[in-house]
Amino acid sequence: MIERIAILGTGLLGASAGLALRAAGYRGGITGWSRTPESAQLALKMGAIDSIAADALQAAKESQVVLLAVPIYATLDFMEKLSGVLGSDHLVTDVGSTKAQISAAAARLFNTPERAAFLPGHPMAGKERGGAALADAELFRGAVWLFTDDLDAQRSLHSVALVKSWREWVTAMGSRTIDLDPARHDELVAWVSHLPQFVATALSALLEDEVGDAPELKDVGGRALREMTRLGASPYSMWRDIAYTNTEAVQAALHALEQRLAHLRENLRTPGLRDEFEQANRFRRE
Amino acid sequence: MIERIAILGTGLLGASAGLALRAAGYRGGITGWSRTPESAQLALKMGAIDSIAADALQAAKESQVVLLAVPIYATLDFMEKLSGVLGSDHLVTDVGSTKAQISAAAARLFNTPERAAFLPGHPMAGKERGGAALADAELFRGAVWLFTDDLDAQRSLHSVALVKSWREWVTAMGSRTIDLDPARHDELVAWVSHLPQFVATALSALLEDEVGDAPELKDVGGRALREMTRLGASPYSMWRDIAYTNTEAVQAALHALEQRLAHLRENLRTPGLRDEFEQANRFRRE
Repeated sequence: MIERIAILGTGLLGASAGLALRAAGYRGGITGWSRTPESAQLALKMGAIDSIAADALQAAKESQVVLLAVPIYATLDFMEKLSGVLGSDHLVTDVGSTKAQISAAAARLFNTPERAAFLPGHPMAGKERGGAALADAELFRGAVWLFTDDLDAQRSLHSVALVKSWREWVTAMGSRTIDLDPARHDELVAWVSHLPQFVATALSALLEDEVGDAPELKDVGGRALREMTRLGASPYSMWRDIAYTNTEAVQAALHALEQRLAHLRENLRTPGLRDEFEQANRFRRE
Repeated sequence: MIERIAILGTGLLGASAGLALRAAGYRGGITGWSRTPESAQLALKMGAIDSIAADALQAAKESQVVLLAVPIYATLDFMEKLSGVLGSDHLVTDVGSTKAQISAAAARLFNTPERAAFLPGHPMAGKERGGAALADAELFRGAVWLFTDDLDAQRSLHSVALVKSWREWVTAMGSRTIDLDPARHDELVAWVSHLPQFVATALSALLEDEVGDAPELKDVGGRALREMTRLGASPYSMWRDIAYTNTEAVQAALHALEQRLAHLRENLRTPGLRDEFEQANRFRRE
């Protein structure tokens, strides 16, 4: 029933979704749009999309499913525009990393019997660098793809079927889906996704100050240091909107870690250090 | 000139050294000793050692090179005992993660023309779990092996040659050697090795408190979370001596990171966040 998908934003996630859909057997059309023409050209060349749209809204109108794969504020902008031009025979979904604002906008702008459906989504997959050049048909395999759908949404029968079909494609791309309340989603990812990123950023920035002028000494840290700072390469452009739209939960998580580090620092020579190692071991038990 | 090496401590590092020496073409004998007989049996079965010693000091006497691969305080204990029984035709070296106390003990107990030589060493290689079962002939390949040798050591010509030979074997095992002053070593590893470990421990312990009762939600974090908490599996028994023998440098590094995290937390919605991401990006530039 999905004859054409429009992917708005052909960066790492958008282009990977196109490749993964093809790998999973999707035979319909895939139109791509990007703010930067080079990105769409690259996605086309890789086979992630089969045509490039000059006009994103027109491409959306001509598709049954619209995948928004742009930063969060750009997603919110597109939602405003798409709401006016799409009807009940369309589904819009997204890949944004925070869901409270997007889910609120979805309730306001979509999900009535006359309007398009909106299914808020968040694949827990990515790389520390973005761009279509790194796109990968296997990016979503084994990953969790979160949804924060509105259980009270009043949708047309047609768009209900589109939602069901998109969920099946997500599973076919290799992801496991989990449904969460939007507020719970944002709190959870603050702990398991945003906190690890901001810690890696702070650690990398600190180490650049301390040993950045002695590149030969960076190698000394070996695999452990490389892993703990890999996410230090993540671009601000990707994380700015996350910091803005999940500020309170991220602040709470960062503050809790600051206190935990202080506790550990004060207990380097006490049995408190053993307790911390044992609690950490529990998190990593098989 | 090295006909027999005694490896005291056949855990991950000791057994890996035995395997790596064999892979590098070492044809002499390798005697192993372990506090736990099962560990030495396993190392023998793997081919990391060719005989098991009941008496560590006797094994040391019958070897030209003694590799101490035990925790730091056990290393210091062995240094006291070995100093009395070995002479100028022996070299003792170690793999301890902090070097100030070990280097001071070496100056006091070794490195005169009549006594054995002591070369303080520290391979920057390991795994988050220890034990001979995880030993790997390739563990040291591509790693940095630090030495904090005493340039004023008064050694016999014979032990000077043993030091040179051991350094060549370390290179043959695939490691790049870097020589550092002991105090500088301990300060450097506080930043690039100990800080990443203690951060991973604190982050893992915190997350166990927050989401440990919902194992399905651990998967949500994906690769990023797995990497940032892998070292959370490291055992207290391995890190206790490090925390005790490098307390001040680790405290300074932890305190600096606490301040950095607080700065980031206070700047989630200001251009200060961009500055932190850009400084972190510099640390990870290719």
